[in-house]
Amino acid sequence: MDSGTYFGEFNRRDWRTASEGTVRIAVVGLGGFARNRALPAIRDSDFCEATVLVSGSPDKAASLADEFGTERTVSYDAFREGEAADRYDAAYVSTPPAFHDEYAVAAADLGKHVLCEKPLAATVADAERMVDACADAGVVLMTAYRLRTEPAIRRMREAIRDGAIGDPVQIHAGFSSRLLDNAGPESWRLDPDVAGGGALMDLGVYPLNTSRFLLDADPVAVSAETQSSGAPFDRVEEHAALLLTFPDGVTASCTASFGGHHDSRLQVLGTEGQVIVHSPFGGHATEGVVLARGEARTSYAGRPVDEVCEEFDYFADCVLDGGTCESDGEEGYADLRIIDRAYEAAEIGERVAVHASR
Amino acid sequence: MDSGTYFGEFNRRDWRTASEGTVRIAVVGLGGFARNRALPAIRDSDFCEATVLVSGSPDKAASLADEFGTERTVSYDAFREGEAADRYDAAYVSTPPAFHDEYAVAAADLGKHVLCEKPLAATVADAERMVDACADAGVVLMTAYRLRTEPAIRRMREAIRDGAIGDPVQIHAGFSSRLLDNAGPESWRLDPDVAGGGALMDLGVYPLNTSRFLLDADPVAVSAETQSSGAPFDRVEEHAALLLTFPDGVTASCTASFGGHHDSRLQVLGTEGQVIVHSPFGGHATEGVVLARGEARTSYAGRPVDEVCEEFDYFADCVLDGGTCESDGEEGYADLRIIDRAYEAAEIGERVAVHASR
Repeated sequence: MDSGTYFGEFNRRDWRTASEGTVRIAVVGLGGFARNRALPAIRDSDFCEATVLVSGSPDKAASLADEFGTERTVSYDAFREGEAADRYDAAYVSTPPAFHDEYAVAAADLGKHVLCEKPLAATVADAERMVDACADAGVVLMTAYRLRTEPAIRRMREAIRDGAIGDPVQIHAGFSSRLLDNAGPESWRLDPDVAGGGALMDLGVYPLNTSRFLLDADPVAVSAETQSSGAPFDRVEEHAALLLTFPDGVTASCTASFGGHHDSRLQVLGTEGQVIVHSPFGGHATEGVVLARGEARTSYAGRPVDEVCEEFDYFADCVLDGGTCESDGEEGYADLRIIDRAYEAAEIGERVAVHASR
Repeated sequence: MDSGTYFGEFNRRDWRTASEGTVRIAVVGLGGFARNRALPAIRDSDFCEATVLVSGSPDKAASLADEFGTERTVSYDAFREGEAADRYDAAYVSTPPAFHDEYAVAAADLGKHVLCEKPLAATVADAERMVDACADAGVVLMTAYRLRTEPAIRRMREAIRDGAIGDPVQIHAGFSSRLLDNAGPESWRLDPDVAGGGALMDLGVYPLNTSRFLLDADPVAVSAETQSSGAPFDRVEEHAALLLTFPDGVTASCTASFGGHHDSRLQVLGTEGQVIVHSPFGGHATEGVVLARGEARTSYAGRPVDEVCEEFDYFADCVLDGGTCESDGEEGYADLRIIDRAYEAAEIGERVAVHASR
């Protein structure tokens, strides 16, 4: 096996079809990530264009429309009523999770494709409604798991799939980010009705979904611990730790924390080698990849790409090609099912069986 | 806080007392670790001398006695009967775990101090008998947790204790070593009656004990998974994964594997920073230490020391000083209690409460 298979043309877009065109996007919700990452990524993308901004704040929307050259700004109510629907082909839903279903379903009812931030919804029931609405409307519903288009993760997935590390045995993955460094105690992330949960929902979904993606499998059971040090983490968990069991006895030890020093890491240990990704979940390019097999270690720290840009172009490719989207609504739904079981496991202190898919 | 506190004089022996002298050691059991690591370490130590070799193989014992210049070789039966007892002050018990108690108790009854390999015994009851016998005889019983004298682990423990990473939040630690690369299917490590268990007993005790040491705390609960891919791992587990809960909600995700690619790693995440130790458990010097605090990262990869040599000199210092031994029999006993609970947790699929100490 030649490691060059994975490290040559590292940033290649293996998912690209022959489809060309432009997908016009309504950006629904103009929070920090939408402003600082999504709008610049759409601007820099090959196949997307932000044409409509949807916000409850006309001033903020107008200022961003000016900055990014979008055609229209509309209010949330107007969006739901179909205003400016002829100006966009798809909605990027970037509101807090509890509002995802409302805008995703509205978009689907208007015949628009949907790219929705993760977690897909605040509850399993909401996610199910979104999946059904998009299926009924015949539109693409993609969950915005940007790691799935991040080249390091895609290359390492290929390596694992090809048996480069033998059979996977154990995963260690964690994501921590100090919430209060960037938000006050009024943050929606501290409100379980809006966020759907705490660190596990907001951060834990990255190690969880990435583990599932790299193993190409769903967990069958989960044990969990959730912890908080007190206010303002008295309504959602500050820290979470999962022990997931996958088929063939593979385990994934996944952690998430709103209180831990900013860090993310990922290790997939196999019988013949291992994959290590440094800083996989931090929102920017990974800081390096190591593929070890036997005594050989190959590391990669090449030119990074903007994974958010990759994500939008991947979404556009799915829309333009009319084909399947790997990171679909069922994927987001499955993670919510698993998280739901994890919360139960933490509460009752038992290993809980998981049936991730519908 | 100045990182130099920890990285200056990295290899200092902070445990040294003013006591001087030489502890004469009977090496009981001449397996691979005793031959390749312990005997050379004793030879290179400041305060130990191997004077007696105890083995069931007279030829092997004679050859090693010649190589290391020891005074006497005796059989296991003769050792138990006190032969050559005037030639040694302490026994280093390096047999498989199921025989630890027999030789440790025999040594204690002869008034000899005991340094016993980990896990301390094959069962909790055996460990308890050993602890009691050594207490009754008034001799030192040290469990051979060499990590506790490894400078990287000691320095990082000081840093954590001083609050250099804030409050600890989550630990990820793992140790994997492919058993069948170095042993056949007849290995005693595959016999639960001799080894006391599988990967969790033999390898998992490292991340477990090191987590306890670094946190200076005992877990209060454990969830666990044990897995095997089939023969020859049909009597002991090939892989194990623990989710340990410590006081204040700190969690430790610890894994061990007889089937995974050789690797060990350790991360202690805190609210203000983190500690990472590369290859902590592999049996040789760690490959590097990182202490991160805020935006600053200090790494250390200085001159390694032989942690086994450190361990023997630490043991000798405890014996010569007549004081307390930090890595005592109670420590080994506590880990066996936790492992016992972990096996139960894996079997019944529940989070199990742990009372580590007697």
